Amino acid sequence: MRVSELSRRSGVSIPTIKYYLRDGLLPPGRATAANQADYDESHLRRLRLIRSLIGVRGLSVSATKDVLAAVDEHLGDVHVLLGLVLGVVPAEHPGTPDEPDDSGRADTAGLSEVAALTAELGWKTSPHPPAALVLAETLETLRVLGVDFDWRSLLPYAELADRTAALDLDQLQVAGDPLEQAERAVLLTVLLEPALLALRRLAQEHHSRRRYGG
Amino acid sequence: MRVSELSRRSGVSIPTIKYYLRDGLLPPGRATAANQADYDESHLRRLRLIRSLIGVRGLSVSATKDVLAAVDEHLGDVHVLLGLVLGVVPAEHPGTPDEPDDSGRADTAGLSEVAALTAELGWKTSPHPPAALVLAETLETLRVLGVDFDWRSLLPYAELADRTAALDLDQLQVAGDPLEQAERAVLLTVLLEPALLALRRLAQEHHSRRRYGG
Repeated sequence: MRVSELSRRSGVSIPTIKYYLRDGLLPPGRATAANQADYDESHLRRLRLIRSLIGVRGLSVSATKDVLAAVDEHLGDVHVLLGLVLGVVPAEHPGTPDEPDDSGRADTAGLSEVAALTAELGWKTSPHPPAALVLAETLETLRVLGVDFDWRSLLPYAELADRTAALDLDQLQVAGDPLEQAERAVLLTVLLEPALLALRRLAQEHHSRRRYGG
Repeated sequence: MRVSELSRRSGVSIPTIKYYLRDGLLPPGRATAANQADYDESHLRRLRLIRSLIGVRGLSVSATKDVLAAVDEHLGDVHVLLGLVLGVVPAEHPGTPDEPDDSGRADTAGLSEVAALTAELGWKTSPHPPAALVLAETLETLRVLGVDFDWRSLLPYAELADRTAALDLDQLQVAGDPLEQAERAVLLTVLLEPALLALRRLAQEHHSRRRYGG
């Protein structure tokens, strides 16, 4: 396909595609004339993945370049691929996550509680997932505010999150190509976040009406 | 209790408490001397609710004043009370939500899909919940990005959100006093949002490793 069709089918403007080509994010097409090239479905899939990493996950062009280089090396390993595009695994050393920069933010008590939670659930995660810090900070904030809510209170929520994540993984299996699967993972993980919170709010109102409504 | 103890037990500084007293957010204590007053548990509960509305929900002092005035009128109606502090019901006319300012943002197709979803689930909500707009916008964004995901794909997620909301409501029943229940509702709804998304991320990694890990 010509660059105009690539633009139309990807939703990425021609100047932006040319910038990605110059910058090496997108490999060159097959030259067909002095100033023309032919692109195929693999360009389209890669461009759609780039768009999701920059436009939806909010990565910089340079971080996207690192992720794509790592993705190219691990195309056959779906678990590493998903970790890379979702930011669980750093692009520099896939498979061996770094120590996080922000390990000092949550105190040891909070992180031990999160370790107890994941152990109880039997979840195996990478050594320092950013999400564990978020959980530790939430538990500490609730404690500071005097709310009686510890990691055990999170257990039933975690069991529902477990089933939510299983649904997420089911949604990815419809895409056969690894780059398509990676793109879907970014879109359906990041874009569904506000939607899942919105569903909870609607359901809260429904349950509140059922329990307390006139 | 003296203002110093009220400050210690609420986590709100004495100058801020004095500001709330001058501004009428907090009713005056019982005067015990020329420049001293005595405060009771009802002051503490109200102050904690004020702190959660301003510090956690991010309301302005003036919006908090409106919510508190409406709360005072509806202390006996837990459903309206929760709707008020969570922002489902506008403080100006509790029980009859306004047309939203932003009704033009999502097109009719998205909102009809959300209406089909809530009907299928049997959820009864107020006429124009902000959360419905979020859902409509998510469905439209996914459609624009070429992802095959419609309101029916949201159904299994909504069923898990329904169970999450039931847990949320269970957490409120431990608080007997209406103001305490309202405070807990704000804290456990707003502060748990990033934690629930973090649990989903950890569970995604766990499921990805189980399905695709080496």
